Amino acid sequence: MLETLKEQVVEANRDLPKYGLVTFTWGNVSGFDKESGLMVIKPSGVPYEELKPKDLVVLDLEGNIVEGDLKPSSDTPTHRLLYQKFPGIGGIVHTHSPWATSWAQAGKGVPALGTTQADYFYGTIPCTRRMTKEEVQGEYEWETGNVIVEAFQDQDIDPLQVPGVLVHSHAPFNWGKDPHEAIHNAVVLEEVAKMALHTYQINPNTEDMDSFLLDKHYLRKHGANAYYGQDKK
Amino acid sequence: MLETLKEQVVEANRDLPKYGLVTFTWGNVSGFDKESGLMVIKPSGVPYEELKPKDLVVLDLEGNIVEGDLKPSSDTPTHRLLYQKFPGIGGIVHTHSPWATSWAQAGKGVPALGTTQADYFYGTIPCTRRMTKEEVQGEYEWETGNVIVEAFQDQDIDPLQVPGVLVHSHAPFNWGKDPHEAIHNAVVLEEVAKMALHTYQINPNTEDMDSFLLDKHYLRKHGANAYYGQDKK
Amino acid sequence: MLETLKEQVVEANRDLPKYGLVTFTWGNVSGFDKESGLMVIKPSGVPYEELKPKDLVVLDLEGNIVEGDLKPSSDTPTHRLLYQKFPGIGGIVHTHSPWATSWAQAGKGVPALGTTQADYFYGTIPCTRRMTKEEVQGEYEWETGNVIVEAFQDQDIDPLQVPGVLVHSHAPFNWGKDPHEAIHNAVVLEEVAKMALHTYQINPNTEDMDSFLLDKHYLRKHGANAYYGQDKK
Amino acid sequence: MLETLKEQVVEANRDLPKYGLVTFTWGNVSGFDKESGLMVIKPSGVPYEELKPKDLVVLDLEGNIVEGDLKPSSDTPTHRLLYQKFPGIGGIVHTHSPWATSWAQAGKGVPALGTTQADYFYGTIPCTRRMTKEEVQGEYEWETGNVIVEAFQDQDIDPLQVPGVLVHSHAPFNWGKDPHEAIHNAVVLEEVAKMALHTYQINPNTEDMDSFLLDKHYLRKHGANAYYGQDKK
Repeated sequence: MLETLKEQVVEANRDLPKYGLVTFTWGNVSGFDKESGLMVIKPSGVPYEELKPKDLVVLDLEGNIVEGDLKPSSDTPTHRLLYQKFPGIGGIVHTHSPWATSWAQAGKGVPALGTTQADYFYGTIPCTRRMTKEEVQGEYEWETGNVIVEAFQDQDIDPLQVPGVLVHSHAPFNWGKDPHEAIHNAVVLEEVAKMALHTYQINPNTEDMDSFLLDKHYLRKHGANAYYGQDKK
Repeated sequence: MLETLKEQVVEANRDLPKYGLVTFTWGNVSGFDKESGLMVIKPSGVPYEELKPKDLVVLDLEGNIVEGDLKPSSDTPTHRLLYQKFPGIGGIVHTHSPWATSWAQAGKGVPALGTTQADYFYGTIPCTRRMTKEEVQGEYEWETGNVIVEAFQDQDIDPLQVPGVLVHSHAPFNWGKDPHEAIHNAVVLEEVAKMALHTYQINPNTEDMDSFLLDKHYLRKHGANAYYGQDKK
Repeated sequence: MLETLKEQVVEANRDLPKYGLVTFTWGNVSGFDKESGLMVIKPSGVPYEELKPKDLVVLDLEGNIVEGDLKPSSDTPTHRLLYQKFPGIGGIVHTHSPWATSWAQAGKGVPALGTTQADYFYGTIPCTRRMTKEEVQGEYEWETGNVIVEAFQDQDIDPLQVPGVLVHSHAPFNWGKDPHEAIHNAVVLEEVAKMALHTYQINPNTEDMDSFLLDKHYLRKHGANAYYGQDKK
Repeated sequence: MLETLKEQVVEANRDLPKYGLVTFTWGNVSGFDKESGLMVIKPSGVPYEELKPKDLVVLDLEGNIVEGDLKPSSDTPTHRLLYQKFPGIGGIVHTHSPWATSWAQAGKGVPALGTTQADYFYGTIPCTRRMTKEEVQGEYEWETGNVIVEAFQDQDIDPLQVPGVLVHSHAPFNWGKDPHEAIHNAVVLEEVAKMALHTYQINPNTEDMDSFLLDKHYLRKHGANAYYGQDKK
């Protein structure tokens, strides 16, 4: 069942330590199959190097386990909600990567200061508001998804154009059209989060990049008129 | 004698360079066997990669050497005191890991700014007061243990819930139910110490995380109602 | 055709990840053959480890492709312009190396604060002005070359003596007498960019190094009276 | 001739990249043989991995080459002067290690903020004054040695107790009883230089460590009453 997606999810989970995004088991990746409406996610607390396709948990978006003997990641409800509310995404990554997490702890989104960010994110990578006591003490992981969705709605951001978020006092989530692209975006977020702090330390009065430069770089790689990379055949 | 514990202590000492916690021989790990009341500790100045179970020193908590040909770590009296005063711990790690040591040199505890810390430490990781001239010139390593204990008593912190401390102008100690968990907590301390500085650099007005979020994350992984990871059988 | 230069360009592209200068495919290297007036450049979006001499694209400086089946790097027009305007250079490197990129995002050149920089760059490594809307929406990559040239002309800097630049809100370009030297200069830029920020953090009032010390170190390694290294036979 | 010392010098030079102290060939190590009055030093510009004992240059302290076909390091006069003026040292290391170099560029010595430094350096690691135009344009590398010696004399520091220095606008030199110990001290300097900046960033009002704690740690490892490590037989 969903063997290709399972392999992608295993590979993407193994990419977490490879790219330096995680300490211990502080991260998880899921993938979503649009056709069947099912998602595949890492089990909770299992080391990446031991992870095999048969260890993964298959669920529907209401949270019913369809296959798998292990408990799914405790962050599963957040993943489920994002697949429900952000149509078009096929992979989600959660990490505590240190530079992005520092911005999340500071409660600030990562501003677009240069073309590195513009190549992947069409503007600021937002930070959610603090969660309320009721949200934290209620269905916490589900509510985590809700504050993410709220941040994109309130600031009128398209999640397909800004494939990542910082959860206040917590850490980042990233997504993409598949698990591989979600990992890719998590790596970029970590890199631009690091550079944004250093940029402000070099020049505290740094302004955001010009909007026409943001347009140029984002659209050079995305959408109908993209011209970066080799033509797909 | 205590062969399993010795193997754990050797493995945990070897984890020090593996996790980037030490330069040269700047760190040591011990383990404690509750039943016999004996502790096992690294000998002083021996490189980790050469360390073998038979090199370890076995002592009782009064400092009498029960087994071993080498001199125990010079920090042994600190370890002894902590095993005496913090019942329930079974492993202690001392390092000069650079981010935690920077906080120790600054004389400040590492505040709980996000869920990464909350998953392992139930609040601020405290820093001791400066040691007095009398303490330093007296039984220095024993008195180091005393100022650690004092910090937990004065601030009414449970050492089982906050398994680590910064010794002022010196460096961190961490502990856990066994040597492996102590190492684990030392890695987490280093990571949150790094992120806490960067968080303040991004936003100097960052406030501590909400107490209900701290509760949620700490208790999600610890205590009777924990639901993280796979069920133990 | 240009087999030696192709091998140099492949090797220099592979040096990008080896020296930690790139994430994913965020960088490219070209080489220029003065005799034939042709340049050799990396194709767009191809991973470094898969790159072979036959994948490279050969162009003249007007941009006509002379050999190669793949699309050249999207930054090709910038490389072409620099080879036209900076006679004497034989290799160009573009990266988003994080410390140099942070200075580029901050819109500031890297000042000469010590002999490390003076050994390779005869003064401040300049940052261009912001590009205009017309430039960005026009022949963007070509205009990128133009603002680089403008920065050297306006500040009267010899590009052979200062073999690198930061493009505002973007990232660095470096060059040298061949692709290998261009890579070398990119590594040095990254190192001095890192140290310059830390220097100002240690002492915000740090002044530039003395001009006679800059002279001494630059000329000790460059020009007729150089005496560093072994004599070339 | 001096085969044991040559092997030590080759090994110590190879330790430079191993410990992350150098980029390219930005560093050199020498050793001094008290009995013969001769020193052995790395040739200029030769990569560490290719270095063999027969490549080394043997000189007397007046600079006469006794053995060797290659040009010695351009920093040789600095090494010679230090062996002349700091009796008791048997190895010298020069690097541009980035944290120590940042302090050198900032023109500030590294203060003793904690026991990590106290275990190896008996106080602040000093920074020289800026060199004058006459010194730089004269016998530059020899005069570099002179400003180092002046810094120790003016501040009444014993070079055997503080085995390292920062040369203003340049980079560090370290020394020890042999090349191996000199490398060791260079690693420690880099580590404490890094931690000292972070300490001040955490707490700008950090004061130097208490002098009695400095005494305790330095003397615990050095001198007649040292008790760290295993007893030498």
